[in-house]
Amino acid sequence: MSGQFITLEGTEGAGKSTNLEFIKEWLTSQGIEHIVTREPGGTEIGEAIRAVLLNKDYTAMQAETELLLMFAARAQHLQEKILPALQQGKWVVSDRFTDATYAYQGAARGMSFERIAEIEHWVQQGFQPNTTFIFDLPIEIGMARVASRGGETDRFEQEKQDFFEKVRASYLQRASLAPQRYRVLDASQSLQKVQQDIVARLQAMQQAVEKTA
Amino acid sequence: MSGQFITLEGTEGAGKSTNLEFIKEWLTSQGIEHIVTREPGGTEIGEAIRAVLLNKDYTAMQAETELLLMFAARAQHLQEKILPALQQGKWVVSDRFTDATYAYQGAARGMSFERIAEIEHWVQQGFQPNTTFIFDLPIEIGMARVASRGGETDRFEQEKQDFFEKVRASYLQRASLAPQRYRVLDASQSLQKVQQDIVARLQAMQQAVEKTA
Ligand SMILES: Nc1ncnc2c1ncn2[C@@H]1O[C@H](COP(=O)(O)OP(=O)(O)O)[C@@H](O)[C@H]1O
Ligand SMILES: Nc1ncnc2c1ncn2[C@@H]1O[C@H](COP(=O)(O)OP(=O)(O)O)[C@@H](O)[C@H]1O
Ligand SMILES: [Mg+2]
Ligand SMILES: [Mg+2]
Repeated sequence: MSGQFITLEGTEGAGKSTNLEFIKEWLTSQGIEHIVTREPGGTEIGEAIRAVLLNKDYTAMQAETELLLMFAARAQHLQEKILPALQQGKWVVSDRFTDATYAYQGAARGMSFERIAEIEHWVQQGFQPNTTFIFDLPIEIGMARVASRGGETDRFEQEKQDFFEKVRASYLQRASLAPQRYRVLDASQSLQKVQQDIVARLQAMQQAVEKTA
Repeated sequence: MSGQFITLEGTEGAGKSTNLEFIKEWLTSQGIEHIVTREPGGTEIGEAIRAVLLNKDYTAMQAETELLLMFAARAQHLQEKILPALQQGKWVVSDRFTDATYAYQGAARGMSFERIAEIEHWVQQGFQPNTTFIFDLPIEIGMARVASRGGETDRFEQEKQDFFEKVRASYLQRASLAPQRYRVLDASQSLQKVQQDIVARLQAMQQAVEKTA
């Protein structure tokens, strides 16, 4: 039962998807059994909910609706995929998780943190990631990276800069309040430097797991 | 501001959809402005959520996921459609509403009523229907009616008899605890008899509204 749960957080273009791949390769190189996944989504039902959440025609979506959909997808993700994998001793790496709900639906959309915490408690019953990497980056740089990455924008990506400034500040604030769990990465550095920081943390996790084994 | 909110509840085949049409015609005959709607659904976003909820391939759906999806659709329905119509003085008639959540997700699926009440309170802030008609019918009779109505069955309609027995009992229990709001109709009677009972209540509502106008 030494499965570890790692989540990647940050604003658009900060490097979550790129480094999800990197972490996957590192875990493979170490012979650590793992799965990678994402939120919102991660299961068939969750991906159907994601399609509703990201549909950019749904400009009328209420903040409450958005919050409840996020946790609906998460409840499914936890029960069907994340918890079973951890119970099998696998490491689970997710591109976003509950910190994103506090940052996007809480700080940026204005839903109360107390309310989010209540639903979180009900859905997760205290369950938290072992490590959360926060890819921290000035919003303009992330936007420029996303633009050069190409592709369609979704309902969230159509928000304005001040929305993402709130998201960024919220991630940093949450990290400051629980520094053991979070690892804030300066995502404006080269990918190589960012990945050195990631590996340092992964090695520390690996050693801690081996010690208790 | 004399809009009235009427909800129709009951197990499958009890007569909700048939009598939604009947109520619509009665309101039209009285010159009362109104809209009819349904749950889960009622809005574009809500109907997309409904499609996820009813998809019969989604046998892995967790009870928590189902409950959160129901309230996600309801939050949208309230803000986008029900409350604005009532504020314009229209009557709103909905095929199912929150009583169905207590009956299906609560009594039948086993989600705690306290939890449902918390989310209800957050989404509705005390808002309740003025009148809820409960179409009460032995489960076998409803099943036989549905079978002769034809059409595909959805994820809920595939449940077994004891599931619907719990739903039925839960509706009756809720009605017994707040008899002013609920009107339990014996749906095993002829449609004509059922509709006499409906009209009696609608006329009482109409008179009460005229008195306060
Ligand atoms: N540290 C970095 N330095 C330079 N470019 C980066 C860095 N991290 C990611 N990128 C590039 O930025 C773009 C967005 O990265 P991506 O991983 O898709 O971000 P996210 O998943 O957080 O939105 C990609 O083209 C990626 O190659
Ligand atoms: N009181 C009644 N007596 C006989 N048949 C009825 C009665 N109410 C409804 N029905 C029939 O039963 C079937 C199911 O009714 P419906 O209104 O679709 O139920 P629901 O919407 O509650 O599932 C329809 O064919 C309808 O005509
Ligand atoms: Mg990404
Ligand atoms: Mg019906």
